[in-house]
Amino acid sequence: MQPIQAVAWSDDGDGVRILDQRLLPEREVYRVLRSVDEVCEAINTLAVRGAPAIGIVAAMGLALSAKSEKDWPSAMGAITAADGRLRGTRPTAVNLSRALDRMLKVGLARRHDESELRRVLHAEATRILEEDRAMCRQIGERGATLIPDGARVLTHCNTGALATGGIGTALAAVYVAVESGKRVEVYADETRPLLQGSRLTAWELQRAGIPVTVLADGAAASLLRDGDVDLCIVGADRIASNGDVANKVGTYPLAIAACRHSVPFYVAAPTSTFDPLTSRGDGILIEQRSADELRRVLSAQTAPANVAVYNPAFDVTPAELISAIVSDRGVHRPPYDFSELSR
Amino acid sequence: MQPIQAVAWSDDGDGVRILDQRLLPEREVYRVLRSVDEVCEAINTLAVRGAPAIGIVAAMGLALSAKSEKDWPSAMGAITAADGRLRGTRPTAVNLSRALDRMLKVGLARRHDESELRRVLHAEATRILEEDRAMCRQIGERGATLIPDGARVLTHCNTGALATGGIGTALAAVYVAVESGKRVEVYADETRPLLQGSRLTAWELQRAGIPVTVLADGAAASLLRDGDVDLCIVGADRIASNGDVANKVGTYPLAIAACRHSVPFYVAAPTSTFDPLTSRGDGILIEQRSADELRRVLSAQTAPANVAVYNPAFDVTPAELISAIVSDRGVHRPPYDFSELSR
Repeated sequence: MQPIQAVAWSDDGDGVRILDQRLLPEREVYRVLRSVDEVCEAINTLAVRGAPAIGIVAAMGLALSAKSEKDWPSAMGAITAADGRLRGTRPTAVNLSRALDRMLKVGLARRHDESELRRVLHAEATRILEEDRAMCRQIGERGATLIPDGARVLTHCNTGALATGGIGTALAAVYVAVESGKRVEVYADETRPLLQGSRLTAWELQRAGIPVTVLADGAAASLLRDGDVDLCIVGADRIASNGDVANKVGTYPLAIAACRHSVPFYVAAPTSTFDPLTSRGDGILIEQRSADELRRVLSAQTAPANVAVYNPAFDVTPAELISAIVSDRGVHRPPYDFSELSR
Repeated sequence: MQPIQAVAWSDDGDGVRILDQRLLPEREVYRVLRSVDEVCEAINTLAVRGAPAIGIVAAMGLALSAKSEKDWPSAMGAITAADGRLRGTRPTAVNLSRALDRMLKVGLARRHDESELRRVLHAEATRILEEDRAMCRQIGERGATLIPDGARVLTHCNTGALATGGIGTALAAVYVAVESGKRVEVYADETRPLLQGSRLTAWELQRAGIPVTVLADGAAASLLRDGDVDLCIVGADRIASNGDVANKVGTYPLAIAACRHSVPFYVAAPTSTFDPLTSRGDGILIEQRSADELRRVLSAQTAPANVAVYNPAFDVTPAELISAIVSDRGVHRPPYDFSELSR
């Protein structure tokens, strides 16, 4: 069975078809977004999530924004207004602003013809989606070389088809390994506080027919100790030039436990995640997220209403705990030299 | 402010007063249980939890069982029936069957006088409660010597007043330290899957006026790395004679991370937890709990309904990661010799 497609053009090409992730894992519902309003609302409410997927949907939304304008000035006005609103949905998401920058640049290059403008914006959004799909495939092909037949793979958070336009980043390696005939079994950390592992990773693997077992984040060390894991593979939010990796909180303790039990620990991420301006992990600023993520789980109160909370979004895993880093360009091993990745 | 009292006789001495833990952290509601039925229901539904607290409540329930019988044979019949039902509530809880054994032994020694029988059973249940309170106090006094003024203490699960008849085990050390004038700040792992840290530990510390901060289990390593924790202290479910400790799942990865960052890692537990028949931690059988604990959080579905789950109740922390073990008899440091603890 194929991995799902989280984001695509609708069949008539006139809307953005998304899988509504708010309803997972209970229901698989697709929606077609036909306006900038609907795209903003989908991003704001986490119907679409995952940095690459958000960038793609925003680009598609910008392309939709000019569809009913009758002349070039009003089309440009609509695009400019849409750009501001789309950027405002998730101000810190780098993929989002990068995708919108590309769209605006292409749009501004085609002055004075509103139908030509619509065509190039649609084409550019399609290109952003297709590039993401190709990038996922590249990471998957390279990552799959690290996954032997019969492997039991432990992962954290969601790095799969639900987060991208393609088959994911770290999870792409699993998809490609299975596609090539290898038997692979996945253990998915539930990944508190937002439960992307149990809600999303478990769902999409099960949907693709790949055996998956969910566990509490605190149970992973027991599994590693018992020799039930052959390798760990996780994604990355930012990679420093010394190979230190910022990723979803809970990655670092997993890497420490994997190291203690001599289980290989791999990171897989697109080259856009490599940050040549950050030399070491301790230079990465860690965003603190809302206290309510720890005070509530969905609708249930799980802690005193006003209790203090420590809720970092990410943690930093030092390069010494990482066996290799997979990008769409190759498998990188320490000592790292990422200079060839800079264009 | 005093720690709460989770279990006590009601004011009229004719019922068991409990804090209903199912309603925490939202509401603090006390209930008086007046029959064996009500005691069994309270244990079954987790209105009372924590191994020591369950043993105490069961003993009190047994004492209540004979209260309205008019002669000795019917009183003994009522007690025997109550014993079977109370044991059936949590068959693997060692404190429960130990407490009931004591009650039966005392009961059988007072034949032929139903009012004397009622008196000795009430007295024995009171003794079990008082011994637990004294044990908590002893652990607290000894554990507090490890907590310096100004300490930031990280803990896991609930080992406090809510789990015992007194001020807890590991958390007793914090209560005594604060009582003696030290400033102490606690970080509480939320402790998936059952969230005893965020639901219970955070609640009872806040209630006692001790500063507490809740964090996801996966965030503890970041806190340790940032130098924000001076010591860790946790409880134990069983301690092997080499000092390996079985405790709530998530303890082992915490100990690994504490070790990596040179933060002292302490275990505190009553001598009844020390098992001279188990020489090493790998001889401890780890109970697997219900898959639904990972598929749901309270009323919310958090994973695919039928997904496979790995859900061990406990993990084993090897002695080499533990700085010292605190019992009601003293502070034990490696190499361990627990032979003086056997009576």
